[in-house]
Amino acid sequence: MRGLTLGELARRCAAELRGDPELRIEGVAPIGRAGPGEISFVINTGLRARMRGCRAEALILPPELAAEYEGAALVTAEPYLAYAKAAQALHPAVLPAAGVDPRACVDEGVELGPGVHIGACAVVQGGAKIGEGSVIGPGCVIGSDVMIGARCRLGARVAIERGCRLGDRVWVQPGVVIGADGFGFAREGEAWVKIPQIGTVLIGNDVEIGANTTIDRGAMDDTRIGDGVKLDNQIQVAHNVRIGEHTAIAACVGIAGSAVIGRRCTIGGAAGILGHLEIVDDVHITAMSLVTKSILSPGSYSSGTPLEPSARWQRNFVRFKQLDDMARRLRALEKRRDQGDE
Amino acid sequence: MRGLTLGELARRCAAELRGDPELRIEGVAPIGRAGPGEISFVINTGLRARMRGCRAEALILPPELAAEYEGAALVTAEPYLAYAKAAQALHPAVLPAAGVDPRACVDEGVELGPGVHIGACAVVQGGAKIGEGSVIGPGCVIGSDVMIGARCRLGARVAIERGCRLGDRVWVQPGVVIGADGFGFAREGEAWVKIPQIGTVLIGNDVEIGANTTIDRGAMDDTRIGDGVKLDNQIQVAHNVRIGEHTAIAACVGIAGSAVIGRRCTIGGAAGILGHLEIVDDVHITAMSLVTKSILSPGSYSSGTPLEPSARWQRNFVRFKQLDDMARRLRALEKRRDQGDE
Amino acid sequence: MRGLTLGELARRCAAELRGDPELRIEGVAPIGRAGPGEISFVINTGLRARMRGCRAEALILPPELAAEYEGAALVTAEPYLAYAKAAQALHPAVLPAAGVDPRACVDEGVELGPGVHIGACAVVQGGAKIGEGSVIGPGCVIGSDVMIGARCRLGARVAIERGCRLGDRVWVQPGVVIGADGFGFAREGEAWVKIPQIGTVLIGNDVEIGANTTIDRGAMDDTRIGDGVKLDNQIQVAHNVRIGEHTAIAACVGIAGSAVIGRRCTIGGAAGILGHLEIVDDVHITAMSLVTKSILSPGSYSSGTPLEPSARWQRNFVRFKQLDDMARRLRALEKRRDQGDE
Repeated sequence: MRGLTLGELARRCAAELRGDPELRIEGVAPIGRAGPGEISFVINTGLRARMRGCRAEALILPPELAAEYEGAALVTAEPYLAYAKAAQALHPAVLPAAGVDPRACVDEGVELGPGVHIGACAVVQGGAKIGEGSVIGPGCVIGSDVMIGARCRLGARVAIERGCRLGDRVWVQPGVVIGADGFGFAREGEAWVKIPQIGTVLIGNDVEIGANTTIDRGAMDDTRIGDGVKLDNQIQVAHNVRIGEHTAIAACVGIAGSAVIGRRCTIGGAAGILGHLEIVDDVHITAMSLVTKSILSPGSYSSGTPLEPSARWQRNFVRFKQLDDMARRLRALEKRRDQGDE
Repeated sequence: MRGLTLGELARRCAAELRGDPELRIEGVAPIGRAGPGEISFVINTGLRARMRGCRAEALILPPELAAEYEGAALVTAEPYLAYAKAAQALHPAVLPAAGVDPRACVDEGVELGPGVHIGACAVVQGGAKIGEGSVIGPGCVIGSDVMIGARCRLGARVAIERGCRLGDRVWVQPGVVIGADGFGFAREGEAWVKIPQIGTVLIGNDVEIGANTTIDRGAMDDTRIGDGVKLDNQIQVAHNVRIGEHTAIAACVGIAGSAVIGRRCTIGGAAGILGHLEIVDDVHITAMSLVTKSILSPGSYSSGTPLEPSARWQRNFVRFKQLDDMARRLRALEKRRDQGDE
Repeated sequence: MRGLTLGELARRCAAELRGDPELRIEGVAPIGRAGPGEISFVINTGLRARMRGCRAEALILPPELAAEYEGAALVTAEPYLAYAKAAQALHPAVLPAAGVDPRACVDEGVELGPGVHIGACAVVQGGAKIGEGSVIGPGCVIGSDVMIGARCRLGARVAIERGCRLGDRVWVQPGVVIGADGFGFAREGEAWVKIPQIGTVLIGNDVEIGANTTIDRGAMDDTRIGDGVKLDNQIQVAHNVRIGEHTAIAACVGIAGSAVIGRRCTIGGAAGILGHLEIVDDVHITAMSLVTKSILSPGSYSSGTPLEPSARWQRNFVRFKQLDDMARRLRALEKRRDQGDE
């Protein structure tokens, strides 16, 4: 029978049950269109208006809102977390059956754990090891001596180059490239001489990597991604970068070589982080900011200018070139005033 | 016989013919090197110098320039549009022959319309439907229950995940990923709990999607791309984003979750659009601008600072940190002046 | 026997040998963990502290440091370049054996030079030519009439579209797309009409292209990448762009259509370059700068604002909108002062 009872969901979400524990819940839905058999959520009192006319079978609510709602509810101080767990319980990932697709290309000398799935047109090269229950999507290329832990999920067309290692429960979205050569060259006259990239990439447990993100192998040392790190799409992680546990990075961020990022940081979309610098734990960078020096204190950091209608922006934009001049002239006026005071 | 007559081209471009209708035109070329059998174009009077010494068989010209040119011409108020149509007529897309390549991997339970082509090493999973005359390039991965309309063209190595839908005449360049999981996590202590992404991606008719662009599936609702939308390369479209009809977005733009973008907008390259905001119809964003709030009036918007020689820029750059201080000091000087006036 | 003698390395790096020429060196390592059999390097006197307690078998050093170090050394005015050459000598690329993998899909009418390797699930279409000793990685798609020179290395899942050409010794990292359609459309009412992209991409010798980078084919002319150009990951090169010899471009840069970039330039990460402009030789752009006009003098150029704690930044950020107003008010105060002086 599809779905779960509300009582079972309460247990899985560690929430207080209000209403009939036998109510059948089949899925989650946005509160605006949730109907019979569906559960939705309200995160805080600012959104209380959404409860009006709600036709969901049940709601996940914070205690402050529970008194205002008469229907069945799961009450918890962390409604968004409870919603995540309810959604996981009600919408388990659809995994392909264990086994190697006959159209996959698995070389000799590959070790596959029990329950592994290898998709069609995937290529797994010699010396690779893939742990129990992991799924390798169609069209993936797993290089020689790559080690992939247990219960990983690689989407379509992921490339993992020679010798890189993934922990357990790593989810890799389609199009990701792990372990390509870092960008290392020495000048010789006007030309560039390539520096062989002999490190690898080491990825911890419970990491998620978004579509078309790239993580380069180390130049001499390894590039390291800590446990629980979440990377969104189209991120560039250069050689020798280290990212601390549970840091979350939004899409389109670029991180230059040998940058070290702490734990529990959040990096907004399209931010840039220069190389050979350090960001301590618990730093938050807002979208499209550029980090040019080490950040040694936790907190939130930003750069950039406000969006304006282009005509008005143009007037301020050109003045930026006069900023130093303006500061000097302002100082001169102040000096004169101060002399006038004497 | 290769090419078309100038008369036929005039008809297809809805332009006024000047010269011999039987002139044979075999291709388009840039005006600087166009020669016998080739047609080129001049868009406006500012570029009239380009007509001098032109050796093209014919030119597409606006009425203002037609009098200044003695050769064969197609005269129209929209020369760039006429050029597009002439180029389409003279350089039709080269399509592979209909049929499933014997080295493709098409699962059972796939529905293929008449004239469909599936390339080598493409994988099409069960429940997928592909409409009449569509082309699936080599190495593509089409997930289960994906629906692709008629006369679509997917380049090499495109991945479309489970359940996503494309309308008719959608062109997808190589390396695109449609329907990967959106970036959704709830905090639990210092860790992140994944929120299953149960929506899909719905793409309208006549959409073009550039190389290595990613469009994430919705968290609960669907991500929606309207009819006629044009997306350039390396764009990131996050979960639940909606893009209105005929909006064109240049390369490297990042659009965060649940942003709603109107119709006929143009977004410049590498711009960023934060999540959970709305941009109305007919808004234009210039390159590398960051949109942090909803835009409720049509028009052009910008952010950013001017490029300068680095040494000079450095002086202005550091003053940015004093801007608020400078504004206060300026106000203080004005107050003093105003008191002096009393 | 693994490795090389120090004497042989000295010869290959064109460095002065100090110590026993028969010392066996097996690999390079970072100076902090280099041990027996390993060679490391120090670039300049600012890093001399790293030599203390060094346990490397030998060091590559500049002359200024050689007197301070007692161990075996290779002494050269260009230690970083010597390190690159030592690493190449000690860590030669691991290449797959020559031959076509039986699971590759090579069409009829393909020309393969001697020693070519074609990986599993790679697709090579009719009319393609691949030069002596080149390696085509697993899952690559090589379009019809593509020409690839000698000793090229294509990583996994590279797509090269119809008719594009690569010189000799071009290294292409995984996920790259070369020759997708450029972004060209003409407006017709509110819709966009596609302009066929009939040019190709021409890539010189000794070019390196980073993972998931995209290089679009020309609209009418060709997109051209000069000899020795180095492109990092996730770069977008639009149609008709020309990049001069030995220019190096860091990750995430976007270059719009028809931009012409000179020789020996360096472009910092995530910079943006608008279309239809020219950048002369020997220009350096710092990270995340936006180039909106041609740059006609060599030198370093920048744009952008400094990173600050978000609360402080917010105060300066909002003042940016008043910049033009502030400039006018400052001028007014100065005028008044000047009148007071009369």
